[in-house]
Amino acid sequence: MPIKHDEAFLARAIAAGAGEVPADLVVKNVRLFSVIDGSTVETDIAIVGDRIVGTLDSYTGDREIDGTGLTAVPGFIDTHLHVESSLVTPFEFDRCVLPHGVTTAICDPHEIANVLGAEGIRYFLDSSLETVMDLRVNLSSCVPATAFETAGACLEIEDLLPFCDHPKVIGLAEFMNFPGVLARDPKALAKLAVFQDGHIDGHAPLLSGLGLNGYLAAGIRTDHEATTAEEALEKLSKGMTILMREGSVSKDLEALAPILTPDVSAFVALCTDDRNPLDIAEEGHLDSMIRRLIAKGIRPLDAYRAASWSAANAFGLKDRGVIAPGKRADIALLSDFDDCRVNRVISGGLVADDTAYSKREIVEPVGLDSVKVAPVSADKFAIPARNSEADVIGVVPGKIITEHLKKTLPVAGGKTLVDLDQDVLKVAVVERHKGTGNIGLGFVNGFGMKRGAIASSVGHDSHNICVVGADEDAMAHAVNRVIAMKGGFAVADASGVKAELALPLAGLMSLEPFETVREELEDLRASAKDLGCTLDEPFLQVAFLPLPVIPHLKITDLGVFDVNKFELVDQGS
Amino acid sequence: MPIKHDEAFLARAIAAGAGEVPADLVVKNVRLFSVIDGSTVETDIAIVGDRIVGTLDSYTGDREIDGTGLTAVPGFIDTHLHVESSLVTPFEFDRCVLPHGVTTAICDPHEIANVLGAEGIRYFLDSSLETVMDLRVNLSSCVPATAFETAGACLEIEDLLPFCDHPKVIGLAEFMNFPGVLARDPKALAKLAVFQDGHIDGHAPLLSGLGLNGYLAAGIRTDHEATTAEEALEKLSKGMTILMREGSVSKDLEALAPILTPDVSAFVALCTDDRNPLDIAEEGHLDSMIRRLIAKGIRPLDAYRAASWSAANAFGLKDRGVIAPGKRADIALLSDFDDCRVNRVISGGLVADDTAYSKREIVEPVGLDSVKVAPVSADKFAIPARNSEADVIGVVPGKIITEHLKKTLPVAGGKTLVDLDQDVLKVAVVERHKGTGNIGLGFVNGFGMKRGAIASSVGHDSHNICVVGADEDAMAHAVNRVIAMKGGFAVADASGVKAELALPLAGLMSLEPFETVREELEDLRASAKDLGCTLDEPFLQVAFLPLPVIPHLKITDLGVFDVNKFELVDQGS
Repeated sequence: MPIKHDEAFLARAIAAGAGEVPADLVVKNVRLFSVIDGSTVETDIAIVGDRIVGTLDSYTGDREIDGTGLTAVPGFIDTHLHVESSLVTPFEFDRCVLPHGVTTAICDPHEIANVLGAEGIRYFLDSSLETVMDLRVNLSSCVPATAFETAGACLEIEDLLPFCDHPKVIGLAEFMNFPGVLARDPKALAKLAVFQDGHIDGHAPLLSGLGLNGYLAAGIRTDHEATTAEEALEKLSKGMTILMREGSVSKDLEALAPILTPDVSAFVALCTDDRNPLDIAEEGHLDSMIRRLIAKGIRPLDAYRAASWSAANAFGLKDRGVIAPGKRADIALLSDFDDCRVNRVISGGLVADDTAYSKREIVEPVGLDSVKVAPVSADKFAIPARNSEADVIGVVPGKIITEHLKKTLPVAGGKTLVDLDQDVLKVAVVERHKGTGNIGLGFVNGFGMKRGAIASSVGHDSHNICVVGADEDAMAHAVNRVIAMKGGFAVADASGVKAELALPLAGLMSLEPFETVREELEDLRASAKDLGCTLDEPFLQVAFLPLPVIPHLKITDLGVFDVNKFELVDQGS
Repeated sequence: MPIKHDEAFLARAIAAGAGEVPADLVVKNVRLFSVIDGSTVETDIAIVGDRIVGTLDSYTGDREIDGTGLTAVPGFIDTHLHVESSLVTPFEFDRCVLPHGVTTAICDPHEIANVLGAEGIRYFLDSSLETVMDLRVNLSSCVPATAFETAGACLEIEDLLPFCDHPKVIGLAEFMNFPGVLARDPKALAKLAVFQDGHIDGHAPLLSGLGLNGYLAAGIRTDHEATTAEEALEKLSKGMTILMREGSVSKDLEALAPILTPDVSAFVALCTDDRNPLDIAEEGHLDSMIRRLIAKGIRPLDAYRAASWSAANAFGLKDRGVIAPGKRADIALLSDFDDCRVNRVISGGLVADDTAYSKREIVEPVGLDSVKVAPVSADKFAIPARNSEADVIGVVPGKIITEHLKKTLPVAGGKTLVDLDQDVLKVAVVERHKGTGNIGLGFVNGFGMKRGAIASSVGHDSHNICVVGADEDAMAHAVNRVIAMKGGFAVADASGVKAELALPLAGLMSLEPFETVREELEDLRASAKDLGCTLDEPFLQVAFLPLPVIPHLKITDLGVFDVNKFELVDQGS
């Protein structure tokens, strides 16, 4: 629970800062790097409660940490991410990501909100009061993303209002419905009006010129969707803070690094958006972004400032972002400064170790029965024959954008069939929230599988069950295993299930430790490869096939969706 | 009154920003200077209500201003000032200072609060809803400044709480009682605790090392009292934003200009603290600070950024500080960029002209009967003879700090007399709030007057009537004229009053236009000079003689005060 900064606390903080009484915690003899001026000075850092009370002086503390040989930088702030994409609970996310120096994570519980609505947001807010890192929440602004899919919930402004005064809430999360803003959709305006004096996070891929001006006129301030320097520079020049993103799928660091100049570093922050636990294990988190930025020639001052002060500032977190008396005690202690190797982390005055994690009051998981659909039979995946060419979703490895292909496919017994020679498989989205029985059916190119199927109850943003397969029996096995697990990933062939990961929390998150999830993901990847899958991230690619706000061709439980025309594709004969 | 940013407003702003409908106001063909990256681009700027809705594009508007040849920079933000020091009402301050490009003034109504208490703060808040500039208020934190004087009011946290949610309130004003903070005075802690999540402005002259750390541990964030680069650099390195001050008396620009480097300009802002209308007429306001900084070799990007974005940021004003869609329409249009010559000003979307000023709903002045003391007779200024040397306040021209002198003075008829040869005059402070009859008496060196007296109901911070004179009749004339005017400045000789300025609003502010006040001040200066006064700013020097928080020797209605010992001087024999 957050520490109260009342008179008693202040009296202790002042006395310790003035050196009259010992501090709670002192980091001794550490090199303090300043994101204000780029200087490095050896000093002690004194902490009382969750607050730094002294720097640039000598202190004693009830607990002392030897900082010899380490460099202290302000804890990193991830300015936009979905914890759900890590496939673990907020508590495991905390334990997995905080050791990488990320002391503040500004999350948007958009995925769980699409499944559980307000209950999902409440679960995140309850958890945020317990995590060792400071988990902050922007309220999901666009649930569901479109009217062309069946989501588990719909959030209007009345649903968000009860959360506005929660101490962990910052503002409104990525306003991805930019067509709604520009069309002055009344429900969008109602949400925007309430948050005019707070923070409204943006999401405006490729928006520019007059359209961008109209969007910004609504008071939207930050954006993580710039994918080219040119796009980022226009947004910067129009007052946005650019949240440079490097996720597991969307990777913008290479393109955007050049904008991070000394003059502009106060207006650039970092984020991961969606990063899975395998990537975190293999590459790291914001630490890896800083490492790569410095390796690319960005000044350390600008990289570390973007990761801390600029981020804090963009989101109105006035209490952090520098290591100084009066600021929140969020500190990453580095064994290697230029290579950003995090040795130890202090978050809100707590040393991030097993003791700190063990003191969290566990919040009971919610949405354990969110997969509300009966098992399906293989014949449900049959697609009637049609006379014209089929519309085929063309997957692009490592991108969430897709191509809209047209293919002539084999027909037999009144059905259109998969065509392994053209690498065209079936894709289906099985509605799992409302008992509609909807199954959207279509074709997909680019997975490379020669047999079997992979299924996922993570399917942005409505999170119905999405399955890609070479044969209908395998598709049924995989989907039914996901249903039986109350959510998860499954790989199957015609004989049955080959690998799986249960995600029973809203069908999105595991209840297991992140290490277990990581191992099971490796098994799943290997099994998918056995089926011939050529994609590095088969489950992420499956999960983004239903996302109807990203061009060009997608699929929902209502059918194949042409994002450019913003309408369902007519699949009649 | 502030414009409501409701759905209807947003719909209009978005539509105009997107170029679908005309804006309310467009500045055509202006060079837009970016405080983000230092670039200059020719563009139109479109405005709806108080908000910029479009830049870097072409627009039409219901009203259009030709910006050809002008450079647009964000309106300047004065981060700390006392409107009362301008001697005019907030409405006249608005009309006087806004043309200098100052679109936001963060004031501390500390002077009127010392006279009228909460009523004075309320008057400023009411006025702030009507001014064309955005007048913001930090709530006075230390009223009265000490227990060694009789003020008109005492403000505890309970008195401030009713104002906390006012839309124009930012936080707590300059926390000058730094000894109280370090001593953990319960009343100081009570105020600090309430504003932990808001802004707490600092005031910590010469505080450094552990003392500064203790002060900052209380959550204090900004400081305008650094007078050397060394002091400012320590405060910067400890996370404070430095408010570089250049007032009529306290002038720090020369000393602090070197700290305004590219890396640090996000952490430096500008302020005037106390500037009188003569200085504003002769030198300007923040525009003159920018001009001088650039002339001293500071990059224009850093000077203009400090004057706008950095200031906005330090005080949590997220809606301003850059010229960009979605931001408040606060714009200074410059005819000369490097010399910072302001041609025209737009504040909250209003062109600052007579039409805009005439639309303000006048707020009735308060405290018109605040000088509650009967006329005094000359014999009240007699000072009994004593055997020891007299303690004499040594005025330092252009400084509010004083020296503590010891002088042997002539004695006659059981009285100690003035000594013109040693330039030692009498000084008295006549209590005017509570009817105590208190008159503090003492001697002062440094005014140079050979006859007559000057009196003022402005006397920091309690604002009793302070008079300096060479003879007792003149002192009585001057004081009684101030009483008759219900406050003001007066110059008198033995024959009567020679010049005057009425300040009937709380004894601090004129009800006349600033131009009239300026003329009367010139008369007063000339009259003081006629008496032999050698000081450039005789009334400011008089007004700071009673300020018992500035070293070394001061005077209150209770007597001569040794600031270093923090006690009244024993003036017995």
